[in-house]
Amino acid sequence: MPVPVILDCDPGHDDAFNILLAAAHPAVELLAITTVAGNQTLEKTTLNARRVCSVAGIRGVPIAAGRDRPLHGPPRIAENIHGDSGLDGPGFGEGEPEVPQDPRDALTLIRDTLLAHPAPVTLVPTGPLTNIAVFLLAHPELVPRVERIVLMGGSTERGNTTPAAEFNILCDPEAADIVFRSGLPVTMFGLNATHQVRATADVVARIAALGTPLSGLCVDLLTYFASTYREVYGFDAPPLHDPLTVAHLIDPSLVSLARAAVTVELNGTHTRGATVVDLHGVTGRPAATEVGMEVDTDAFWDLIVEAVRVLGRPS
Amino acid sequence: MPVPVILDCDPGHDDAFNILLAAAHPAVELLAITTVAGNQTLEKTTLNARRVCSVAGIRGVPIAAGRDRPLHGPPRIAENIHGDSGLDGPGFGEGEPEVPQDPRDALTLIRDTLLAHPAPVTLVPTGPLTNIAVFLLAHPELVPRVERIVLMGGSTERGNTTPAAEFNILCDPEAADIVFRSGLPVTMFGLNATHQVRATADVVARIAALGTPLSGLCVDLLTYFASTYREVYGFDAPPLHDPLTVAHLIDPSLVSLARAAVTVELNGTHTRGATVVDLHGVTGRPAATEVGMEVDTDAFWDLIVEAVRVLGRPS
Amino acid sequence: MPVPVILDCDPGHDDAFNILLAAAHPAVELLAITTVAGNQTLEKTTLNARRVCSVAGIRGVPIAAGRDRPLHGPPRIAENIHGDSGLDGPGFGEGEPEVPQDPRDALTLIRDTLLAHPAPVTLVPTGPLTNIAVFLLAHPELVPRVERIVLMGGSTERGNTTPAAEFNILCDPEAADIVFRSGLPVTMFGLNATHQVRATADVVARIAALGTPLSGLCVDLLTYFASTYREVYGFDAPPLHDPLTVAHLIDPSLVSLARAAVTVELNGTHTRGATVVDLHGVTGRPAATEVGMEVDTDAFWDLIVEAVRVLGRPS
Amino acid sequence: MPVPVILDCDPGHDDAFNILLAAAHPAVELLAITTVAGNQTLEKTTLNARRVCSVAGIRGVPIAAGRDRPLHGPPRIAENIHGDSGLDGPGFGEGEPEVPQDPRDALTLIRDTLLAHPAPVTLVPTGPLTNIAVFLLAHPELVPRVERIVLMGGSTERGNTTPAAEFNILCDPEAADIVFRSGLPVTMFGLNATHQVRATADVVARIAALGTPLSGLCVDLLTYFASTYREVYGFDAPPLHDPLTVAHLIDPSLVSLARAAVTVELNGTHTRGATVVDLHGVTGRPAATEVGMEVDTDAFWDLIVEAVRVLGRPS
Repeated sequence: MPVPVILDCDPGHDDAFNILLAAAHPAVELLAITTVAGNQTLEKTTLNARRVCSVAGIRGVPIAAGRDRPLHGPPRIAENIHGDSGLDGPGFGEGEPEVPQDPRDALTLIRDTLLAHPAPVTLVPTGPLTNIAVFLLAHPELVPRVERIVLMGGSTERGNTTPAAEFNILCDPEAADIVFRSGLPVTMFGLNATHQVRATADVVARIAALGTPLSGLCVDLLTYFASTYREVYGFDAPPLHDPLTVAHLIDPSLVSLARAAVTVELNGTHTRGATVVDLHGVTGRPAATEVGMEVDTDAFWDLIVEAVRVLGRPS
Repeated sequence: MPVPVILDCDPGHDDAFNILLAAAHPAVELLAITTVAGNQTLEKTTLNARRVCSVAGIRGVPIAAGRDRPLHGPPRIAENIHGDSGLDGPGFGEGEPEVPQDPRDALTLIRDTLLAHPAPVTLVPTGPLTNIAVFLLAHPELVPRVERIVLMGGSTERGNTTPAAEFNILCDPEAADIVFRSGLPVTMFGLNATHQVRATADVVARIAALGTPLSGLCVDLLTYFASTYREVYGFDAPPLHDPLTVAHLIDPSLVSLARAAVTVELNGTHTRGATVVDLHGVTGRPAATEVGMEVDTDAFWDLIVEAVRVLGRPS
Repeated sequence: MPVPVILDCDPGHDDAFNILLAAAHPAVELLAITTVAGNQTLEKTTLNARRVCSVAGIRGVPIAAGRDRPLHGPPRIAENIHGDSGLDGPGFGEGEPEVPQDPRDALTLIRDTLLAHPAPVTLVPTGPLTNIAVFLLAHPELVPRVERIVLMGGSTERGNTTPAAEFNILCDPEAADIVFRSGLPVTMFGLNATHQVRATADVVARIAALGTPLSGLCVDLLTYFASTYREVYGFDAPPLHDPLTVAHLIDPSLVSLARAAVTVELNGTHTRGATVVDLHGVTGRPAATEVGMEVDTDAFWDLIVEAVRVLGRPS
Repeated sequence: MPVPVILDCDPGHDDAFNILLAAAHPAVELLAITTVAGNQTLEKTTLNARRVCSVAGIRGVPIAAGRDRPLHGPPRIAENIHGDSGLDGPGFGEGEPEVPQDPRDALTLIRDTLLAHPAPVTLVPTGPLTNIAVFLLAHPELVPRVERIVLMGGSTERGNTTPAAEFNILCDPEAADIVFRSGLPVTMFGLNATHQVRATADVVARIAALGTPLSGLCVDLLTYFASTYREVYGFDAPPLHDPLTVAHLIDPSLVSLARAAVTVELNGTHTRGATVVDLHGVTGRPAATEVGMEVDTDAFWDLIVEAVRVLGRPS
């Protein structure tokens, strides 16, 4: 039985690969995609989700737009990393993507999807947690229909957008607080894990060797992503954060997990949005969250390359 | 010309080794020791400084007590790490240590020492920064007589006493803020560096092999320190934090340094006392602080073993 | 044309009188009542709303329960002011109140009411702002169907539950922040206004003189309310906070209004939940909120007495 | 026996009147004046203290400069209220004032004065509390030589510089925290009290009628002060805050006092520097501070007019 999932994302280069992985692998059943403002504006992340599905031949998965700003404070984007379109690198062309936008609000699509699916569904957020928090606040009666939440965000160590905070959490710390305190099982893949999976020249070469239009587009994405990560952070190769979530669903042994209390800092002058991960149990808070630690990077890249291969072949 | 230093400390197992190193090595001239509440109460840390000097034959270095609590908030000690005495492990005996306490307040001793020394003096704080902050507030006219501040505290990554904050900084975040913003050159050795120098069984064996009374006492200190670090943090061997400061003065190449803006979080609900180290220059603040990064651990332990050897030999 | 309103409340003694006023006065059309945790638990405030409608002969107004806790942090109640039932004083009897609870969630009732009413509706929250914030987050598309928000909460001066914060805002500061920043017109009646309307012996005597069962029950409510306000705050007579909202809708000249920027403090250690009201324009923020200032107390009590009289007469 | 006092001030129009009152009234013995950055820069407030003493014939009172910035954060001045000189209005002439600046640092002058005076001395701060906090940190051994602290600052209600915070406390909240938590008896006169003493046209006329050069200068001060208070806050007449402190020492019945816990908010985003005054005992903190409440304004102005009269007469 594949794991039924709703992806809630803000594509974004690494979100794009997560969509591919979720759509390609038989261990996952991708029920719906919802979008949120994050790496770029809501309008752009929604368009990007449609573009990715269109070029990858992903059909029948509804895509609905959610919130265009965080619960509190002004919106923030990551144009310095993902470019003006939020998915810079490939030429997607001028026209409308083939895959349409679902007319429903993301909140309604999540509700309808949960009500329609016979078994509890896993939520996989890889952007700011605004949509998920609004869902939890608006529909407490549907919480039993959620199996668990597997998210990309935070860190056990340093942040990226600020020295203390990772981008997704910093964009909407209050939403993150609502998610981590929801009582649902939460598994978090933060920078401490995702910085282990860097798209090196070897990885790019493997994808390029597939020789399909989709593999070419993926190479363009990774090449652009590498350029901004080099410029902003001085990294040799860019970390492909988001797909650790779906990779974990496919192969739970791919990333080792620790259990720890995770608290979101809402108030710090210089640390707002930090995820405070109590790995040594010094705070006395219950170790309620699963936290990704050591990644089998070879197995990860095998999954990514295989997803691009599967989706790229003529059907 | 040896580097003239004032040690401001809260012994503490690792402070004790820093006193030994500063007293033993010819590249350093130890002018004075001031004590502060931290690893234990002021009364105990002052007694411990006297005990260490007494057993190690360190004479002529005045030892004065400073502040017994932080600028704001209640005092905090680290009894779970350093024991009831603050220097548990060896039997120091019941009597008064031979080395007396200077009757002056630490603030007065620092002032008198700076005024008496012909050249600017390096301050080496390895406890909470209360004494140094009070000195900076009370005597702005003496700031030009300080060469620089080389401290143990903070981290570029996680904390230890809380997930976000290191003990010394957490004990008195406002004092730390005053020090980091003082305009004086500050070099910081935080947990990211000090966790590299762990007193393994090999290290302890080298010290034991010296076969002097002092080496026996050092072995007792390290054995106790190992036991609490194992229990509280699950470490195989305890990190000997504080001596990185004096080791850096002796051999500036021993620890690589990065320049970064360091800001102390004063306000976070879960992150108060965190040192926010902007290694990637994302905050736009000036990179005013030197931050210890990679340690040559072999060279470090050579210095420590040699200090115990030198002080232990019959004079 | 009467003003169509939804009352969102946590009865609560003063909420009870606001329900009576809204139901009795022809200038107001009471479309629905939603309840929230506040003065007591959600279960109790919902029961109390049904009790008030039952004894006052208010029929045909749906009553639905909303959120049982704030967006963040633990729930807080005001048992020291409103008693164990939330409406201590009168004997309401053991049985179920005649007026039933609507099976819908408060969020659904608000949505359905807004969709069903031909004109925009005024929201009148007199408890913590949780339900209203969740509505604004979940249904941004319905914001144009809201005419304005007229609320009881905050203060231009001191608080009551803490020296800085008023109870309703303190219970859910993040919800209040969402409401004040919603872009909708907000009129706030805080303690600076509501402390002017105190139910003195004269007022109680006027209500008692009506001689109906409802007037007797109102006297019992005010007598209990007086006892707790005397004990907790040393007040001679208790302030009847909430009905200033509906009184303002009935007679806009009853309370003078100032325009000011109102900001909710989310972060203060001792001031969380304070409403920072910029009466002198020193912050540079736009003066977007109407703030109640001077009350015509005689006119206010005339409205209250008349409402009890109208509802108490045999139909 | 007159009350021996040290004035710590930042003249400032109202500080100037407090110096006059302290120097003129036989119930007070003015031992020293120390200055701090506040209403204007330290250089200007020190010059102003010397100017006031010079024109008022106050001799033999040493004047020393203290701290030029707060413990944390950037300095703040009140040029919009006190003008470019900090004492705009009168023409003080170009030359140096007759009364010199003491070469000692304020900290040293406070220490020397306390050590020289046979009885404990009352500290009267009417500016930011930086100097007093540094004194308390640097000289805990001299605390027993302080009788009490009688200060102008804070409020039981709203602030002035921000909606929540009064100027003196906002300038250095950490210093205020140190003072309020010092364990010394503290009496606080905040805006709730000082806004009762407004220099109306009647008051100005009484001073003008004295017909001395000093009275003319006082009229010029009050006229300028009135103009800025009218413009910034819309007040009909300006509140003469600071002299409530010395007036209280002269006549303890002049202002009624309440006892309450006073806590300084250090962390609020919009409320930093607020004095949280627990008048109703809701926080459970000990009621350790005396707080000025109701002022006998006639008696106050009699003291002020008499001080100007006494100092203005030819000796």
